[in-house]
Amino acid sequence: MDFSHSPDVEALRTRLLRFFDEAILPNEARYHEEIRRHREAGNVWQALPLIEELKPRARAEGLWNLFLPRSPRAPEGLDNLAYAPLCEIMGRVPWAPEVFNCSAPDTGNMETLERYGTEAQKQRWLEPLLAGEIRSAFLMTEPEVASSDATNIRCSIRRDGDDYVVNGRKWWSSGAGDPRCAVYIVMGKTDADAPRHQQQSMILVPADTPGIRIVRHLPVFGYDDAPHGHMEVALEDVRVPASNLLLGEGRGFEIAQGRLGPGRIHHCMRTIGAAERAFELMCQRLQSRIAFGRPLSEQSLWHERIAHARCMIEQARLLTLKAAWMMDRVGNKQARTEIAMIKVVAPQMACQVIDWAIQAHGGAGVSEDFPLAAAYAGIRTLRLADGPDEVHCGTIARLELARIAAMAPAP
Amino acid sequence: MDFSHSPDVEALRTRLLRFFDEAILPNEARYHEEIRRHREAGNVWQALPLIEELKPRARAEGLWNLFLPRSPRAPEGLDNLAYAPLCEIMGRVPWAPEVFNCSAPDTGNMETLERYGTEAQKQRWLEPLLAGEIRSAFLMTEPEVASSDATNIRCSIRRDGDDYVVNGRKWWSSGAGDPRCAVYIVMGKTDADAPRHQQQSMILVPADTPGIRIVRHLPVFGYDDAPHGHMEVALEDVRVPASNLLLGEGRGFEIAQGRLGPGRIHHCMRTIGAAERAFELMCQRLQSRIAFGRPLSEQSLWHERIAHARCMIEQARLLTLKAAWMMDRVGNKQARTEIAMIKVVAPQMACQVIDWAIQAHGGAGVSEDFPLAAAYAGIRTLRLADGPDEVHCGTIARLELARIAAMAPAP
Amino acid sequence: MDFSHSPDVEALRTRLLRFFDEAILPNEARYHEEIRRHREAGNVWQALPLIEELKPRARAEGLWNLFLPRSPRAPEGLDNLAYAPLCEIMGRVPWAPEVFNCSAPDTGNMETLERYGTEAQKQRWLEPLLAGEIRSAFLMTEPEVASSDATNIRCSIRRDGDDYVVNGRKWWSSGAGDPRCAVYIVMGKTDADAPRHQQQSMILVPADTPGIRIVRHLPVFGYDDAPHGHMEVALEDVRVPASNLLLGEGRGFEIAQGRLGPGRIHHCMRTIGAAERAFELMCQRLQSRIAFGRPLSEQSLWHERIAHARCMIEQARLLTLKAAWMMDRVGNKQARTEIAMIKVVAPQMACQVIDWAIQAHGGAGVSEDFPLAAAYAGIRTLRLADGPDEVHCGTIARLELARIAAMAPAP
Amino acid sequence: MDFSHSPDVEALRTRLLRFFDEAILPNEARYHEEIRRHREAGNVWQALPLIEELKPRARAEGLWNLFLPRSPRAPEGLDNLAYAPLCEIMGRVPWAPEVFNCSAPDTGNMETLERYGTEAQKQRWLEPLLAGEIRSAFLMTEPEVASSDATNIRCSIRRDGDDYVVNGRKWWSSGAGDPRCAVYIVMGKTDADAPRHQQQSMILVPADTPGIRIVRHLPVFGYDDAPHGHMEVALEDVRVPASNLLLGEGRGFEIAQGRLGPGRIHHCMRTIGAAERAFELMCQRLQSRIAFGRPLSEQSLWHERIAHARCMIEQARLLTLKAAWMMDRVGNKQARTEIAMIKVVAPQMACQVIDWAIQAHGGAGVSEDFPLAAAYAGIRTLRLADGPDEVHCGTIARLELARIAAMAPAP
Repeated sequence: MDFSHSPDVEALRTRLLRFFDEAILPNEARYHEEIRRHREAGNVWQALPLIEELKPRARAEGLWNLFLPRSPRAPEGLDNLAYAPLCEIMGRVPWAPEVFNCSAPDTGNMETLERYGTEAQKQRWLEPLLAGEIRSAFLMTEPEVASSDATNIRCSIRRDGDDYVVNGRKWWSSGAGDPRCAVYIVMGKTDADAPRHQQQSMILVPADTPGIRIVRHLPVFGYDDAPHGHMEVALEDVRVPASNLLLGEGRGFEIAQGRLGPGRIHHCMRTIGAAERAFELMCQRLQSRIAFGRPLSEQSLWHERIAHARCMIEQARLLTLKAAWMMDRVGNKQARTEIAMIKVVAPQMACQVIDWAIQAHGGAGVSEDFPLAAAYAGIRTLRLADGPDEVHCGTIARLELARIAAMAPAP
Repeated sequence: MDFSHSPDVEALRTRLLRFFDEAILPNEARYHEEIRRHREAGNVWQALPLIEELKPRARAEGLWNLFLPRSPRAPEGLDNLAYAPLCEIMGRVPWAPEVFNCSAPDTGNMETLERYGTEAQKQRWLEPLLAGEIRSAFLMTEPEVASSDATNIRCSIRRDGDDYVVNGRKWWSSGAGDPRCAVYIVMGKTDADAPRHQQQSMILVPADTPGIRIVRHLPVFGYDDAPHGHMEVALEDVRVPASNLLLGEGRGFEIAQGRLGPGRIHHCMRTIGAAERAFELMCQRLQSRIAFGRPLSEQSLWHERIAHARCMIEQARLLTLKAAWMMDRVGNKQARTEIAMIKVVAPQMACQVIDWAIQAHGGAGVSEDFPLAAAYAGIRTLRLADGPDEVHCGTIARLELARIAAMAPAP
Repeated sequence: MDFSHSPDVEALRTRLLRFFDEAILPNEARYHEEIRRHREAGNVWQALPLIEELKPRARAEGLWNLFLPRSPRAPEGLDNLAYAPLCEIMGRVPWAPEVFNCSAPDTGNMETLERYGTEAQKQRWLEPLLAGEIRSAFLMTEPEVASSDATNIRCSIRRDGDDYVVNGRKWWSSGAGDPRCAVYIVMGKTDADAPRHQQQSMILVPADTPGIRIVRHLPVFGYDDAPHGHMEVALEDVRVPASNLLLGEGRGFEIAQGRLGPGRIHHCMRTIGAAERAFELMCQRLQSRIAFGRPLSEQSLWHERIAHARCMIEQARLLTLKAAWMMDRVGNKQARTEIAMIKVVAPQMACQVIDWAIQAHGGAGVSEDFPLAAAYAGIRTLRLADGPDEVHCGTIARLELARIAAMAPAP
Repeated sequence: MDFSHSPDVEALRTRLLRFFDEAILPNEARYHEEIRRHREAGNVWQALPLIEELKPRARAEGLWNLFLPRSPRAPEGLDNLAYAPLCEIMGRVPWAPEVFNCSAPDTGNMETLERYGTEAQKQRWLEPLLAGEIRSAFLMTEPEVASSDATNIRCSIRRDGDDYVVNGRKWWSSGAGDPRCAVYIVMGKTDADAPRHQQQSMILVPADTPGIRIVRHLPVFGYDDAPHGHMEVALEDVRVPASNLLLGEGRGFEIAQGRLGPGRIHHCMRTIGAAERAFELMCQRLQSRIAFGRPLSEQSLWHERIAHARCMIEQARLLTLKAAWMMDRVGNKQARTEIAMIKVVAPQMACQVIDWAIQAHGGAGVSEDFPLAAAYAGIRTLRLADGPDEVHCGTIARLELARIAAMAPAP
């Protein structure tokens, strides 16, 4: 198990950190200012000048599409282990990943297209996504059923001549609030009578197809996350060409499995970055505030929390690196215990670290003066998204129980 | 220790529950709808027709000013123990207490005026507050210093002839967003050279006094809590008559101590109601959702969480009743260990219970479809307001250490 | 809900506290010394002179059989609520309850006999137990099956003419190590084909019946708890008269339900006493030890732990009082949610409080110099005995889910 | 950061695992049987035939002194990273490390001698220790002062002519119960007026020097850990030649710092092995027990615990490997944050995992039928030994606060 960075990755890391110092951190206030102006002008669902301004600069500096695994289209792609320290840095500021074309759900969608798309599908959708010209959404979760069990899905994808007709209701379609969002990957059932894991298929649906209606945006702890947004989407007799189907009928579950591994680990990497930033803010705040004659940073209670936060972050990071290393070496399927582990560990860790940081900041911690409450809300949601903690714990347990059962019995 | 309700309280409880069933719960959607309309119309900082419509009805049914301790002005006032079960019910819906003129910070401000105000002050401010005609705010916390140590306060209240002149910056002035908010109770220093706890004074400042500027509202997580709001307020050369001072120069700390006890226990009672409601929503959700062939409510993991939630709520309620009973019997000062205990226990308990309820709801839990995320945000803030947990833990520990030290040594 | 003590109970409490100050606490060293002497003399399984010396004194002072509910045989018996503060005091020293003839499992066995025994059975066994002349054990748990599910029991009680013949293997038969232990109440199956909860019966088995073999004692962590002991007992063709059966064939489960409520609440009361003592030891230790120039008791980290410990103890006590009050008012069956709640809450609370106390004592905490590690071991075991936490959580959850399901649906 | 094992280490691991399968695990019952026989024969403080029988075999297989860093005396010594997976395996059975001459405190004492001893001291004590012919103890902690602050030490080491005279009282002198324990390393003060960290010295004291008295053994949760034992030792006018001093007067603190790093990481490695074994036992037990018609291993509650246990163990292991890697690369001093982190993390993790395993075993879990309760007791003690958690958290926090303070301020 070798977690060392190659000199190339080290160089990227240095460049990325400089980019943050020069162009991301100094622009945090401007980002919120632009959103505020859009909101006051009556439409917050529009792209931000700041992001569009920074994207060409990131691309010019080679800090672009770093998430992409090595492939014919990305000859210099990075593997998961190499991407980890870069993705972590990006996670320090919630809006930063998009600057580098590394934001969810586009990364997962691009990887899905790269891996499972036809050449025509890639030409049509992957290319503009890689260029950062359009954005995309992933429509899987539904409001009426327990999303922890993917076989509950109700959305139907029915063959009709040369087309498929999609009917269903989706929500938590993140990114669908963005006017640049041009395509959805939709999960639905092509055959409700097939074996449990062969009922589902995935299909590409252009966002402007008739029958699609954005019902509303879903706030997360009061945040609308505009212009990205988490939308509820109604699909009524949405008709797309049969060639829009990904991989084949009944293979939706297989694609989901292949897709979610990388998506999950990217979330975890970013989450570690967010936790690390909260930790720094906490330490700085504790050192600057005096109560009862001493800086808060001299109190043993805060020593305990600082120490535990440091231990938790570092452990989650190492586990994430191990998962990345295994995905690179033995593949996503063999690494599924590790992927499930970090999916459980990283958000829980970060919620605790951020909560301590909020407590250290007093009222300022829950306000918009620091990025803490917003980070908490976003990461708390990760404990539900892409499978709730409970489902991942079940996966880990079943795999471990099987492993132990296969061991020679204790003498 | 007798926690029984008198028949009178039992009757009030029955009436209040009926009021909830008939007029509060069925109007939750309308409440949010009115706010949404105001927001879309460009001004969310205005009173809600729904509340104004329900207030006369509550008053007519004798469900009005129930928080008020027995006094000349409130001959049928309730003591803390009697108010507890009523306040808990009100806490089930965040906006409900105002309907009964029992919402913070008005209750604390009314109690302060009743206890420490002159007859003229009462006539001028207490009467319209009791009638629900105006609202009020309490300006104590400041943005630049650690609010956990009240002696850090910087706001100055300087005598100048027959007036006092107030200069300072306050924030988390809850309720100051409401256009009906007509008066502030402001904590400041009249003598920075006096002994630590005699530097502070409290003064009544009409909201429309020149020199007052609402700088901005402070969101809590992503909620603006309009029209109530938590405001940052600048006071620049704000001049009020000397007769506006409460109780006397240097007695601000004393008033704060007397005021915060009831304010804290009311918060705790409402918090228990919020937790109880989250618990019910959690149980209902778990029974309605099927995953992997069974309702979630049959899983032993959820049994564990339901059981712990029930144990935690019930224990916090009993501790709150004990604190109320002690406040009634031996006074707020003798009950300060118990008040500190519930201030720590109730919000931590409720945050955990609500967090489990969120988890049970999946994505819906963090959205506005259920009152869970908003309740979490509000109650998380209580762990910082009116003294952070750490300060209350310090109080409890010091009192307990002194008690143990005074015991005869173990043989 | 009225938790006040009557003047009678208050008087008993005062007398009991004085007895502790005069005769229990000063004899703690002697107790361990007597056991050490017995151990070195080669037989630790014998009664202790100290206990036998104190029993008559306790009886003379009216501090005897206080656990016993009011009944023809105990006209001045105490109800659960009255017994609670007395039982808590006894729990401060693990060996103290026997001095007052209030120790487990004798209390539960006496209550079982009182409630379900025939007059002849009472004459034969209850009288000498009440007099403190003999002791008893309760044989329920078995080594080969999951004891969390009582229907798993394998021990057979087979009718044979005028006798029953018992065959089985029991363990955790607490008190069976004591040479004065004269009778066992044995749970077994009289009819393996009856409905699930009518297969079991309970029968009285004299300890000297042929076919009984004490296989070994079971240590708890490293403690043998001599001379009480937790024994593994083999029963091979153990023949007793049919009149030894309690209540009737198939009623064992019913007796168990009736018996376990009081047994559990007594354990909880004692557990709270043990936690309270650990808390006092912790505070005293922290005040006496200097590190880095200050007493440990001035560190905010210890303030946090002291505060949480105080909150946890007090809440568990109030919940236990509520459970006692309900058992007295509505009966053990109606109070089963509350009994299950304290069975989960009290031992978990005490384990945490004692663990903090151990940490405050450094190495001394895990040694025999303080009663902390032994208390931890005993109370940790309570999380498994009389039903593990998981089973009680399941009970609470099912009752709560049913209650919520029966409520009118939310509008 | 490269955690890969070299082929040599992989080969050692394979051999060690085979040794465990063939000679350690099958002898667990015999180990306890030998102790029981010794105890019944009246002297449990003697070497065990089993251990003496296995040692030559381990030595012959090259599984000997594996802990030893590369040095002139150990040309094939292993670095910390290489030793980690081997030490973890040894930790699966508490008595196993001695078989490989890798048990505490001998390993730490040997390393101290190797690093700081004179050639004569090495000849006299290190050689027989490396050969497994004698054993040793480390006398640092004292009963009367807070051991969390090492400057509290009271034991005096006074120069008198060509000798030093030692006076003091030590406890938790682990291994001093063993009759083969021939030498103590004693920490005391040579100059109470020197600067805080130059008052202490370390000196070699043969166990048979006049004036030494073993006062008693200290049980750990009821266990005497014989024949190893944790002893209280009185030193009264104990006279040794001046040449027995290690390194020089006033350098005791420096030696302690150098010594404790490796000692701590070895403890952590063994602790991870103990946790891993408890995890396996837990999984096996859950699969073998049926309650309410299903194996316990199918309950979602146990899935949650299994998953968290797996996540916690794996994270602690990775953090320990990182600490080992850093000690090897940048030295113990530069790695002190990481050493402090694992010292806090590993025992807390293992206590939680073992506690779950105990719960899964029911009553059997606290008995001697499984190695769980004994492992809990031993590892709980590690949270106090070699500096309590609180001191290590303080170290981590201070280093982190300094690091953050040195960062460029956030823009």
